[in-house]
Amino acid sequence: MDMNVENLLSDGIRATPPSFVRSILKAASEPDVISFAGGLPNPVSFPQEELLRSVNRVVKTYGSDVFQYSVTAGLPQLRQYIAGRYNRIFGLSLSEDNIIITTGSQQALDLIGKVLLDKEDGVVVERPTYLAALQAFSMQQPVFYPVELTEEGMDPEGLERALLNPVKFVYMIPNFQNPTGLTYSAKNREKIRGILKGRDVVLVEDDPYGELRFEGERLPYIGAGRLKNSILLGTFSKTVTPGMRTGFIISENRELLKYLSVAKEAGDLHTNIFSQYVIWDYLEHNDLDAHIAKIKALYKKQAQAMMDAMDRYFPPGVKYTRPDGGMFLWVTLPEGVSAMSLFSKALERRVAFVPGDPFYTDEKNVGTMRLNYTNADCGTIEEGIRRLGELLRDAAVEV
Amino acid sequence: MDMNVENLLSDGIRATPPSFVRSILKAASEPDVISFAGGLPNPVSFPQEELLRSVNRVVKTYGSDVFQYSVTAGLPQLRQYIAGRYNRIFGLSLSEDNIIITTGSQQALDLIGKVLLDKEDGVVVERPTYLAALQAFSMQQPVFYPVELTEEGMDPEGLERALLNPVKFVYMIPNFQNPTGLTYSAKNREKIRGILKGRDVVLVEDDPYGELRFEGERLPYIGAGRLKNSILLGTFSKTVTPGMRTGFIISENRELLKYLSVAKEAGDLHTNIFSQYVIWDYLEHNDLDAHIAKIKALYKKQAQAMMDAMDRYFPPGVKYTRPDGGMFLWVTLPEGVSAMSLFSKALERRVAFVPGDPFYTDEKNVGTMRLNYTNADCGTIEEGIRRLGELLRDAAVEV
Repeated sequence: MDMNVENLLSDGIRATPPSFVRSILKAASEPDVISFAGGLPNPVSFPQEELLRSVNRVVKTYGSDVFQYSVTAGLPQLRQYIAGRYNRIFGLSLSEDNIIITTGSQQALDLIGKVLLDKEDGVVVERPTYLAALQAFSMQQPVFYPVELTEEGMDPEGLERALLNPVKFVYMIPNFQNPTGLTYSAKNREKIRGILKGRDVVLVEDDPYGELRFEGERLPYIGAGRLKNSILLGTFSKTVTPGMRTGFIISENRELLKYLSVAKEAGDLHTNIFSQYVIWDYLEHNDLDAHIAKIKALYKKQAQAMMDAMDRYFPPGVKYTRPDGGMFLWVTLPEGVSAMSLFSKALERRVAFVPGDPFYTDEKNVGTMRLNYTNADCGTIEEGIRRLGELLRDAAVEV
Repeated sequence: MDMNVENLLSDGIRATPPSFVRSILKAASEPDVISFAGGLPNPVSFPQEELLRSVNRVVKTYGSDVFQYSVTAGLPQLRQYIAGRYNRIFGLSLSEDNIIITTGSQQALDLIGKVLLDKEDGVVVERPTYLAALQAFSMQQPVFYPVELTEEGMDPEGLERALLNPVKFVYMIPNFQNPTGLTYSAKNREKIRGILKGRDVVLVEDDPYGELRFEGERLPYIGAGRLKNSILLGTFSKTVTPGMRTGFIISENRELLKYLSVAKEAGDLHTNIFSQYVIWDYLEHNDLDAHIAKIKALYKKQAQAMMDAMDRYFPPGVKYTRPDGGMFLWVTLPEGVSAMSLFSKALERRVAFVPGDPFYTDEKNVGTMRLNYTNADCGTIEEGIRRLGELLRDAAVEV
């Protein structure tokens, strides 16, 4: 009676892996597990009282408009705010027409895949890269061309080689990359810009963490304001609240935005307008920079606590990146140790991380792992790293 | 310098038309235009005060959980509420595991297309059908097999003929269909169930308006609770608020739900959790049936006002459907009159409607139009129909 659903599935969904992070969410969120696995902001960073005041204010001021259907591109006032902020900080010349509000940055990735990719089209990605971007693009069954991510950023020679293939776009996360925490240097950004300039290739700069720099100076974007055919992605998920799923696409290429907007119509008509009003009102009535300064101070302390604990508890031969911002750092295990094989043992010791595997397009049993430091206090971080250190020492003995 | 974006576009986005309704939104929403074009609920139907109370309550009770990332399937309590309501009304046996919360019903259509359709796969649709469903499915470049929609529902013989093709799913809106306002009869539902039973085809029953029946008795679903391989779509957009973009997928086929859930992860991680908490709390603390009864009384009166005005002002030879609920009725013009050609003339007279064309997969200059009666008071409806009647009389003279 029950048919075999497998027969009816699209090639796209068959090619799309479930998210490793989401599949372990249940195990990792058990109360006695210390989880470095997710990418959750610290809940103390949510401006709850201020957002509640904004809710009450927008309902009082705008009444039924905040509950009704709305325009696909998003609340004009919110788009103006975003344009103004990026113009002020980065010297861009954006107007609201350069911006589409998306249902989180994840939807932006989905829309970009839909608009640019046919089966077997090429996408250049960092090696390793954000697993949910691989997931979103996989639905279109592209060919991924991973280019090595070094301490300086994406390897320029590797990028040039990858671009010999029929590539539609290059996807990168230049600030505090997910999963590695690495940031592209100024010089590397210039090189990449030079390589992409004049090519029939779109640059997608995904920048969810750029506001969270706790070390060093802000660096210019590679594409935004400099390459006509570029897309910049941003979000309020790390600075205000992720639960309201409010991200945005910025582009100076209005033609491209037109098609992204059609894909968005077809995808969800428009993003939750109630939340757009609330976030916009919050931004108008509060000092976002002061709020972000508090988040950065918090994450800097937590990142430091994790690095200090790793220095203390991890065995020699384990290396890790030192992020200047964002939410993650990246651990490289000694030769021959598979992070995936450690995962279930770590859960037994009530500590969770994400093994490197899902951040690569085609490698398995890699010796890397992603650790998140934003969603636990310093004491908890130390205890989690202590447990992980014990495990790594035992594993080193076994190897 | 600026590349030709056209070269980079996917075949999917090329195959996807922009929404006619959304493209005329600006013109149709000018303050002196009487618009029967959109599908907007009447804003007086939004329970603003109650929703505001729910916001304050959930923030107070659940704190940071309402602002944090959440699970892909949606808030368990909201899914339990939905399961309970459908079990009570329709005698189903659903649990929360049969439900995925979506970012409006539109996202459900997008996910279904992604999970089931490869290029050139078949989809059976009503002729005419909901334009945004055609838009969502078009992204996958399927072949549409339109089957005539009669006063009784989808033509059973036409459905059997269409199913001779390699069809992945059948899409239908059995209650107060969009665009026609027609409802499938009990007998027609049984026939369709009989035809689909045992076939390797998914039935997608889209039911955004089912709660809004203002005439006659509720009829059983075709698939839900009766065909294992069926999907039922619902939404809070017409009963609570569309601005919060909260819809849902119901299916007894857990295998299918698993793949829809992966597509949702890749699409937007999860639906706005803040709004899910608010809507769930609203449902727990208020009498939804009493609220819906008020909406139905309002829409019944407005539908009647529109039909009365049409009887008074429309020239002979113009026919229209008499809906038992929902938001739309469907007008058929005399032979030879194109609704599209009347559209700009109607705008000059400050009245808007949707010509039939975008509701068909392949026909142009059809003699049908969709009118919405939910978003204007009775006096405004009469005046709009009077203007449209004048135009139709002039057009009839020209023919």
